Amino acid sequence: MSYVVDINCDMGESFGAYTVGRDEEILDYVTSANIACGFHAGDPSTMRKTVKLALDKNVGLGAHPGLQDLAGFGRRNMNISAKEAYDLVVYQIGALSGFIKAEGGTMQHVKPHGALFNMAAKDAVLAEAIAEGVYDVDPELILFGLSGSELVKAGRNAGLKTASEVFSDRTYQEDGSLTSRTEPNALITDPDEAIKQVIRMVKEQQVCCVQGSDIAIEADTICIHGDGVTALEFAQNISATLKEADIQIKPIKDTL
Amino acid sequence: MSYVVDINCDMGESFGAYTVGRDEEILDYVTSANIACGFHAGDPSTMRKTVKLALDKNVGLGAHPGLQDLAGFGRRNMNISAKEAYDLVVYQIGALSGFIKAEGGTMQHVKPHGALFNMAAKDAVLAEAIAEGVYDVDPELILFGLSGSELVKAGRNAGLKTASEVFSDRTYQEDGSLTSRTEPNALITDPDEAIKQVIRMVKEQQVCCVQGSDIAIEADTICIHGDGVTALEFAQNISATLKEADIQIKPIKDTL
Amino acid sequence: MSYVVDINCDMGESFGAYTVGRDEEILDYVTSANIACGFHAGDPSTMRKTVKLALDKNVGLGAHPGLQDLAGFGRRNMNISAKEAYDLVVYQIGALSGFIKAEGGTMQHVKPHGALFNMAAKDAVLAEAIAEGVYDVDPELILFGLSGSELVKAGRNAGLKTASEVFSDRTYQEDGSLTSRTEPNALITDPDEAIKQVIRMVKEQQVCCVQGSDIAIEADTICIHGDGVTALEFAQNISATLKEADIQIKPIKDTL
Amino acid sequence: MSYVVDINCDMGESFGAYTVGRDEEILDYVTSANIACGFHAGDPSTMRKTVKLALDKNVGLGAHPGLQDLAGFGRRNMNISAKEAYDLVVYQIGALSGFIKAEGGTMQHVKPHGALFNMAAKDAVLAEAIAEGVYDVDPELILFGLSGSELVKAGRNAGLKTASEVFSDRTYQEDGSLTSRTEPNALITDPDEAIKQVIRMVKEQQVCCVQGSDIAIEADTICIHGDGVTALEFAQNISATLKEADIQIKPIKDTL
Repeated sequence: MSYVVDINCDMGESFGAYTVGRDEEILDYVTSANIACGFHAGDPSTMRKTVKLALDKNVGLGAHPGLQDLAGFGRRNMNISAKEAYDLVVYQIGALSGFIKAEGGTMQHVKPHGALFNMAAKDAVLAEAIAEGVYDVDPELILFGLSGSELVKAGRNAGLKTASEVFSDRTYQEDGSLTSRTEPNALITDPDEAIKQVIRMVKEQQVCCVQGSDIAIEADTICIHGDGVTALEFAQNISATLKEADIQIKPIKDTL
Repeated sequence: MSYVVDINCDMGESFGAYTVGRDEEILDYVTSANIACGFHAGDPSTMRKTVKLALDKNVGLGAHPGLQDLAGFGRRNMNISAKEAYDLVVYQIGALSGFIKAEGGTMQHVKPHGALFNMAAKDAVLAEAIAEGVYDVDPELILFGLSGSELVKAGRNAGLKTASEVFSDRTYQEDGSLTSRTEPNALITDPDEAIKQVIRMVKEQQVCCVQGSDIAIEADTICIHGDGVTALEFAQNISATLKEADIQIKPIKDTL
Repeated sequence: MSYVVDINCDMGESFGAYTVGRDEEILDYVTSANIACGFHAGDPSTMRKTVKLALDKNVGLGAHPGLQDLAGFGRRNMNISAKEAYDLVVYQIGALSGFIKAEGGTMQHVKPHGALFNMAAKDAVLAEAIAEGVYDVDPELILFGLSGSELVKAGRNAGLKTASEVFSDRTYQEDGSLTSRTEPNALITDPDEAIKQVIRMVKEQQVCCVQGSDIAIEADTICIHGDGVTALEFAQNISATLKEADIQIKPIKDTL
Repeated sequence: MSYVVDINCDMGESFGAYTVGRDEEILDYVTSANIACGFHAGDPSTMRKTVKLALDKNVGLGAHPGLQDLAGFGRRNMNISAKEAYDLVVYQIGALSGFIKAEGGTMQHVKPHGALFNMAAKDAVLAEAIAEGVYDVDPELILFGLSGSELVKAGRNAGLKTASEVFSDRTYQEDGSLTSRTEPNALITDPDEAIKQVIRMVKEQQVCCVQGSDIAIEADTICIHGDGVTALEFAQNISATLKEADIQIKPIKDTL
């Protein structure tokens, strides 16, 4: 039996004079790039450069729309209306599409960022508005959402292809949600354990939650992080280990 | 002999709780709408609403990219690089295109705003970068620029269709530039005089500059303003008077 | 028996080219001005002008710090930490104090804006951080909060003088909170009814809540609104009617 | 004969999730800290932390107001009016003073940042507005400006104490201005040469300009940079070498 998975990473999160992430190097180990669109991070010049880099390395191009909260990096929940969510998703997908057209590429997917991603995992109305925004701009786009989330459901209902995402370095609750970062056991800090969890999610569609039981999970794409000192090393590690485990790493558009 | 001209107006310049302009009413008298894209003015929700309104009234949809200076409404010259100009134009055209796609329309044109428009009239390098940005996103877009400006030249060189713009309520210098707003005689405050100037520009391709001589001018499109207490009245007035003078008012895409 | 009350109004909420509010006229009818500080609304030039206007009319000067959400006018709840609340309050009080010093005045009070005000009414930890921020900049400042709120309690605990605020045009819940604006009966639209409610709150320290019972309330200061077509008329009306009802209108600093 | 000089460094230029500079370490080698105030860089939390750090290390606290251009780090000239310059200086000094009061310190100085600093070196009207803003908030503040600049003149005319600043790693033009960063010879990349230039400026009040002649210069304070990989090493180096050359390093407030 053959297994396939996509690896995605947030990219293009520099802003003006502020440079973060090791985008160029990380791109060698991922198949989908979620490119910040200027609201929570990123700026026009960074977007152009990131699109170019990802195109050069044949990585799937995705919009990574976030809340309009640069000061909080889009990580603070905001009480926006569903229509506001629709509008900011349409705006940011559009903005990125400008650079993708200018560079001669095609947008593959959309993955909301941070608080928007988390709120849309649980809030069906918000999720629906986001899915509708993505569909209205381009019904061929693939919507990335947390495995089992309202966002994935909303995407399917809207007629979009969806990719269920799993996290290598986060623990799961019994209901399939991620353990909140404010909890002490939210993160898996041991890289080997993180990779073992991922391999099981891909091959067995199961993960052991913090309550101790196995829960069902879909693993179309794995999220890895592009910042931090060990990001590159981890990217190389997970890429190599998945291949050894007979899991092919392929862009999501080739497998859906 | 028959004369044709387009009338354009800046639109969608509200922001959040701040509402300006009488867009809905003005749209009855113009053929091209320059829609703010969130940098100098406008926000995602305003953009969506403005695109809808303009589509409903069959008005040509245009992006109106500006400098990233909401506090100054994009009217303060900034020493941006040519590449920064390229990037902010691509970003903003893209952002607006998201809403136009979502609403099922087609973008007709791009007109830079305020200080960006003025700087690009005189700075050939900046003008070239802007024209290149427009072309790279969509070579079918029409670039609006001041009649005789570097921006119009750059648009032609880039392979774009261009529309030479004239102002009804501004006076002209001998070199074809607008008299700076800091000068006392920059504005034509008498509506009849403003309209007379426009009719002559359309029919004779001439305008009398402040130095007293006639200068050549191209008048593909007339810029009118959508704010101020008399904006609507002036729009009605100019629309009616042009028709009486046997000048047809048509969207620029139908005449180029 | 003699009654005294302060009337406060939000001010200086213009931003750049966007002008809102009838500040200059409203200032004739209020005794405390809550001046926006550039986060949810306001900008440096507007702050300077508003400080000047209020000083000229002998109106108490207050900082009106809000969430960093210009696009949402500070009305959207954001999940900020207590320390972030402390920091944004210190920053904004400081910023306004620059203009007050430059104009030779003294700051009287601080009233958080919109979502920050509402969150601090219910969240004791947030309220404590805000009160601490105010105290740390200047322990003589008076903290305005919703009557009965956590913010008023936190102010007292921190050692600040506080002013309990009532709303003329909002209805109350049994627990003393304002009826949410999303509810149909949130607003009192009849000006006479609004004024009657205020007079009773000042004289009897009671208000009839939407559930029908009377609840206790403290009414040190009445909030009125400075925008909307009837704002000025209402301000005149409430000012005149309170005086007729033997209620003196005095700056809060003279009565605490 | 004894020589004294101040060393200043820009600080607190992190923003939200973006961290730059080695502030804590650099503070051991400087006597004046120019703290970003949230317009070109910095945010409320960073300001609080930076004020605390500088106070702990007995470093003079200064406001470092910049243009409202976070995307350009305040380095792009903007055509602001003199009144706008006044207002943004008052605002930012005020904002920082909030944190300084909260931490129990005293503000020592003001140094405009980047493009504002450069424009104010040459534009007498802008310089006057800035000096007036500083004076109006607190006439005891020391104004830092480029040696020989309009800003230093304006500060003196306004009745402020001023500190003439020299740059260790920049070359000078015959008129006393810095060689533009766009020129190939703008920077002195050899640390030894940079320090030699500084020592001569302090001891002889002279510097050899790029045209080859010696020009007069006042050296009250030396600007060093806090970012870049060699910043800390250079700070240590210049500090040690100045002491060896019998130049005492003291806070500017102790020598003016």
